[in-house]
Amino acid sequence: MTEETPKPVLPEVLLQTERTRHRRLREQGSLDRADLDAVLKAGFLCHLGVVVDGAPMVVPTVYGTDGSTVYFHGSVASRSLVASPGATVCLTVTHVDGLVLARSVFEHGVNYRSAMVYGVPRAVTDPEEKLAGLRCLTEHVTPGQWDYARRPSRKELAATALLALSLDEASVKVRTGPPDDGDGPDADSGVWAGVLPLTRHWGALEADPALPEGVAAPDHLAERAHQPLP
Amino acid sequence: MTEETPKPVLPEVLLQTERTRHRRLREQGSLDRADLDAVLKAGFLCHLGVVVDGAPMVVPTVYGTDGSTVYFHGSVASRSLVASPGATVCLTVTHVDGLVLARSVFEHGVNYRSAMVYGVPRAVTDPEEKLAGLRCLTEHVTPGQWDYARRPSRKELAATALLALSLDEASVKVRTGPPDDGDGPDADSGVWAGVLPLTRHWGALEADPALPEGVAAPDHLAERAHQPLP
Repeated sequence: MTEETPKPVLPEVLLQTERTRHRRLREQGSLDRADLDAVLKAGFLCHLGVVVDGAPMVVPTVYGTDGSTVYFHGSVASRSLVASPGATVCLTVTHVDGLVLARSVFEHGVNYRSAMVYGVPRAVTDPEEKLAGLRCLTEHVTPGQWDYARRPSRKELAATALLALSLDEASVKVRTGPPDDGDGPDADSGVWAGVLPLTRHWGALEADPALPEGVAAPDHLAERAHQPLP
Repeated sequence: MTEETPKPVLPEVLLQTERTRHRRLREQGSLDRADLDAVLKAGFLCHLGVVVDGAPMVVPTVYGTDGSTVYFHGSVASRSLVASPGATVCLTVTHVDGLVLARSVFEHGVNYRSAMVYGVPRAVTDPEEKLAGLRCLTEHVTPGQWDYARRPSRKELAATALLALSLDEASVKVRTGPPDDGDGPDADSGVWAGVLPLTRHWGALEADPALPEGVAAPDHLAERAHQPLP
């Protein structure tokens, strides 16, 4: 997909399949594609589930998305990616926003945002599309790096497996707010209840000790340091 | 498992099976059980992979561990847990420590700590063992809460599925440090290289608006606020 290729327009309401239909805690489920987009945009690491020899394998993997496709990659030698072509994968992205501390242990929980994407990933082999996909991935993880760092050589491109997964079949769940037992029999138990939020921040840039003197960090990296993640 | 039951002693060197043997990026793999323990202790949310109707399903789930067993739970109605008994699961815990910004896009990566545990989880049904397992889980996520909040009633206990997974078959991978292209042909390209660290912090406690006046947060929660996560 080059920059000029229009992205497929996916429905704003998420498709409900046997796999993505919300069964439990339905109040936490959303069918709004904008919620899915927000969760995917807020992260860059997913947990990719594949079936290898009949058993599940869950591998942390970097991803990028343009809103209609998720791209993920790895060495061609990677076991999880070799197992993928033609087979369904489940790609899950989760952000933990805090611990929900209720009056009872039973009502304890987690505030989180999570997206699950199901599908059969397509191996991207066309060199131009591969470059565009890697650009999408790189810019998703670290905006500004594609135009700054050295781009992949032909040999590097060949050594990289890039997979594209449609955002057709996906589900999203979000939990926010205080615990649910504020109006139950435990409300007056004298136990403190609330949320302990969890936040993620970028730290200060750490220059590679091997860096020659006088090479300053570019603005797109310097500006990101010390910022909170969404 | 009651408090007095001795835990099984697992070998200090991790077992290498077809699934846990490090194939790629072997320098990132560790066979030291202490590294596995450290990764599991530093987190509380895993991504649990199960096979449902032949397809993988990856679900974010809270866990706790005592060093020889991982406990995780959920409603008895949960699809992923119903699929689990008798079937192998893969439980993965990942901490992202930073972006590795290299001179070339190809050498970009992530500093991370990740553990993968394979096995057939055992449903814990004995009420006493279930209580001990839930205590382990609760204390792992929020130390101090088991003795502070109301413990599960008989009915709540029955509605909770608790699964125990041995730490027998597990692998751990850690990547730290600067990018790897500091001594390669791109070293003098003038491109800044280094690491953008990512940190996690607990925020300020947010009291439930439904909380009666005068209920103060207990010390074990107040002391955790604003602290960094390992």
